[in-house]
Amino acid sequence: MITNLGTSCPSLPSRKGLAILRVSVHHHREMSDDLTEGQSAVIPDGFVINLWQRGFGRTVGPFYSRRDLATNTETMAFRVEDYHANGMNNCHGGMLMSFADMAWGRVISNQREIGWVTVRLVTDFLSGAQMGDWVEGASEIISEIEDVFTVRGRIWCADRTLMTGTAVYKGNRSIRRKAGEREGRG
Amino acid sequence: MITNLGTSCPSLPSRKGLAILRVSVHHHREMSDDLTEGQSAVIPDGFVINLWQRGFGRTVGPFYSRRDLATNTETMAFRVEDYHANGMNNCHGGMLMSFADMAWGRVISNQREIGWVTVRLVTDFLSGAQMGDWVEGASEIISEIEDVFTVRGRIWCADRTLMTGTAVYKGNRSIRRKAGEREGRG
Repeated sequence: MITNLGTSCPSLPSRKGLAILRVSVHHHREMSDDLTEGQSAVIPDGFVINLWQRGFGRTVGPFYSRRDLATNTETMAFRVEDYHANGMNNCHGGMLMSFADMAWGRVISNQREIGWVTVRLVTDFLSGAQMGDWVEGASEIISEIEDVFTVRGRIWCADRTLMTGTAVYKGNRSIRRKAGEREGRG
Repeated sequence: MITNLGTSCPSLPSRKGLAILRVSVHHHREMSDDLTEGQSAVIPDGFVINLWQRGFGRTVGPFYSRRDLATNTETMAFRVEDYHANGMNNCHGGMLMSFADMAWGRVISNQREIGWVTVRLVTDFLSGAQMGDWVEGASEIISEIEDVFTVRGRIWCADRTLMTGTAVYKGNRSIRRKAGEREGRG
């Protein structure tokens, strides 16, 4: 199992923290319930899969998240697999930006419990993600003016920062969201 | 067929310009060679499909492109399908950003014939894309300092601008690219 994990991620979850994903969530590549290597690889302690059943989230997922109920913060994550590859067989920049849009907007769902749409996303690519890497992301609200939220976000793999950026989202208070609701509004 | 096309795209290709896509390019959703509605819908005159066989480009594609050999410019395009949907059943912002990364970087492949990686992408979301919309994108180089390229890009659907932005790419002159080479380096 460990051999499935990205060599560029030095800090692997402790054995006591290991959990194995047992469900097949979608069929990107084949009509088969077999798990891909990524889907059967180790999921770090505390992360649960987001069972998006449709749309872009299912197409490029699966995604995982770990919530800290004390601080009401959430970290999203995904495992880089072959279907995320760019021409150099690293994670495609488009996948990292798509993940940023989802992972950084989630703070609005969790802390304001409303829907949102993306207005502007600024992403700085600092380091690449390799096949098998476990990539995590989160953000914090740094400005809220009426229904316009500005968040500062980061995406990382273990101790390595892959992307930093700033996102502007427009909240939609007519869409009530429960904290941790899975379907993004990107 | 026309009913497959986005109602928010007023200017459809002229009948004389119609072409039907006859090949099935990948199997995102099912192991079936049937075309999805989007893949069997009308392809505007002059566009050819990019037959990416693997990776993220295949996962979220198919993509199309139309080259103007006189100006050595290229317009990329895709049809919004169910597997691009966000939670409101419009095109997910992550898909539009992924498309921007590919469509805006292509100018470097075409005009400098070298590989590239994304350094920074700034995307402003001006309007959404709906199911069935035919979305196009292109960019122009506005700065080139040694191997750092800055491009100004736009994504549109017919007369409607969906996204504008600026991207910074680092060229890699050790990777020789032919103009129009299909595999992105995002």
